[in-house]
Amino acid sequence: MPNLPSPTTLLAALDLIGTCVFALSGATLAVRARMDVFGVIVLAIVTAVSGGIIRDVLIGVVPPAAIADWRPVALATLSGAVCFAWPRLVERLSHPVQVFDAAGLGAFAVTGAQAALDHGLNPPMSAVLGMVSGIGGGMLRDVLMARVPVVLRAEIYALAALIAATTVVVFHLLALPPALAALLGAALCLFLRMMAIYRNWKLPVARRPDSP
Amino acid sequence: MPNLPSPTTLLAALDLIGTCVFALSGATLAVRARMDVFGVIVLAIVTAVSGGIIRDVLIGVVPPAAIADWRPVALATLSGAVCFAWPRLVERLSHPVQVFDAAGLGAFAVTGAQAALDHGLNPPMSAVLGMVSGIGGGMLRDVLMARVPVVLRAEIYALAALIAATTVVVFHLLALPPALAALLGAALCLFLRMMAIYRNWKLPVARRPDSP
Amino acid sequence: MPNLPSPTTLLAALDLIGTCVFALSGATLAVRARMDVFGVIVLAIVTAVSGGIIRDVLIGVVPPAAIADWRPVALATLSGAVCFAWPRLVERLSHPVQVFDAAGLGAFAVTGAQAALDHGLNPPMSAVLGMVSGIGGGMLRDVLMARVPVVLRAEIYALAALIAATTVVVFHLLALPPALAALLGAALCLFLRMMAIYRNWKLPVARRPDSP
Repeated sequence: MPNLPSPTTLLAALDLIGTCVFALSGATLAVRARMDVFGVIVLAIVTAVSGGIIRDVLIGVVPPAAIADWRPVALATLSGAVCFAWPRLVERLSHPVQVFDAAGLGAFAVTGAQAALDHGLNPPMSAVLGMVSGIGGGMLRDVLMARVPVVLRAEIYALAALIAATTVVVFHLLALPPALAALLGAALCLFLRMMAIYRNWKLPVARRPDSP
Repeated sequence: MPNLPSPTTLLAALDLIGTCVFALSGATLAVRARMDVFGVIVLAIVTAVSGGIIRDVLIGVVPPAAIADWRPVALATLSGAVCFAWPRLVERLSHPVQVFDAAGLGAFAVTGAQAALDHGLNPPMSAVLGMVSGIGGGMLRDVLMARVPVVLRAEIYALAALIAATTVVVFHLLALPPALAALLGAALCLFLRMMAIYRNWKLPVARRPDSP
Repeated sequence: MPNLPSPTTLLAALDLIGTCVFALSGATLAVRARMDVFGVIVLAIVTAVSGGIIRDVLIGVVPPAAIADWRPVALATLSGAVCFAWPRLVERLSHPVQVFDAAGLGAFAVTGAQAALDHGLNPPMSAVLGMVSGIGGGMLRDVLMARVPVVLRAEIYALAALIAATTVVVFHLLALPPALAALLGAALCLFLRMMAIYRNWKLPVARRPDSP
């Protein structure tokens, strides 16, 4: 498949996209909460890098990529500053936080699963770790905003990340091209989240314990 | 003491029990909050494995046991699914979240203290790390549910975990059988929590700063 | 500069001061929330040691200094106990939580930046890591109290920590004495926070997305 970019390039690109969109999701939320410029930037950075940092600490990459390299934090800072300076630009999207969040979720789920496989984790746990990389940043963002994380509210969220990560793992087991897996997984995740947001797709909710 | 199981077997069993009951405590809380099936499973997993993961990261076991091995996550998933499918089963207990939580607290406090000793930590910090292993999962569960963690509300909680962990450390210093220490410590912790829940045992509460 | 203490001694002293004042800030908050004695001590410990633990895990110091050594936890326990026993003593300060927090913020920001430099991180990320060491403990304290962390509310906070950490990094790049950098950085941070608290210094707040 000579037309695909090399997996390394593609995964690096997805990591950049994930960093950028997660930063925008955190910054948008912070702007709405009327935080000051530095609060906006801190929330942008935390949202953008903490999923990847958790992943790296768990697979033994120390210092984590987002700490050893200054560019992810710089990119998140820039995204946060843009969002602070021109909030109307970002708010023109109908659900900016959720759309950015969905793109970051898919990007980090596939790069996280690939990183876990590269570090020798077994396939099922690589999929779980990909999911964790995807949901980590948004979880911490929501915890810091003192609200129940979106991952725990009733929408297809962690499942979308797990499906993206599982795509990467299954392609790896079948020795199919990892770049294709990454694109397909991230696209699937984004699609599922968009359907959940705009079409109200849902998973079943628990019955009340007291119902028959 | 030929009748006791080997310490390794016993600690592995306590780890399984802790994983299972902590998963049930998280899942029960999620079902009550009417989360969807995947939210229930995510909260079950987070509650079940994060105490052990924090412990392993702090003592340098990377990847942590709950990440390197797929079984803890699988067990937590299963516990969460059972809880989602048959919520009434679990709710028949009078305080299911607290009872499961108490059992997990004791189990993880003793296995955590033993793991810290095995990795060469000094005795007082091994007891503290056992306490952290015990309280970590429930803390994260409560933070994700946006409520003040049970460990900080007025009941004997972190103290029970510390007593369990200290039992293991004291037996280790006296060269007494670790299996006995683990059983005794976990039982003590469960007993103290049950007394706190059903008999309202309490520690002294701070006086108001403005009272004489 | 023969009159300055050796950098090692000074940084160790700043770490002790940071541990102590952060513990007091957590304990004061816990006493006000009428927690029991063990809850007060747990919150004191968490606030005092988690910034340093996060820093150590990220730069690969495992087990972290606050886990390998029993003294930081002992000092935090003692501070928490003092605060529990004599709450009026502490409350005589007009803003005790914020004043202690400001001192801890500066102390940990400079020691964190120095530790990151010592472990070979590049200069910009050493400054960021110093900031993280400073803000980590207070963030976790506030998350556990289920309130939006002070770092995200509208006052000069993360910026003050970043300025302190950057002072250390700039002095390092210019080969100026690290002890001087540490004192100057910590003092700058404390000054900025005091101005923010007592003089209401502020950073610009985001415009509403819907304003022209």
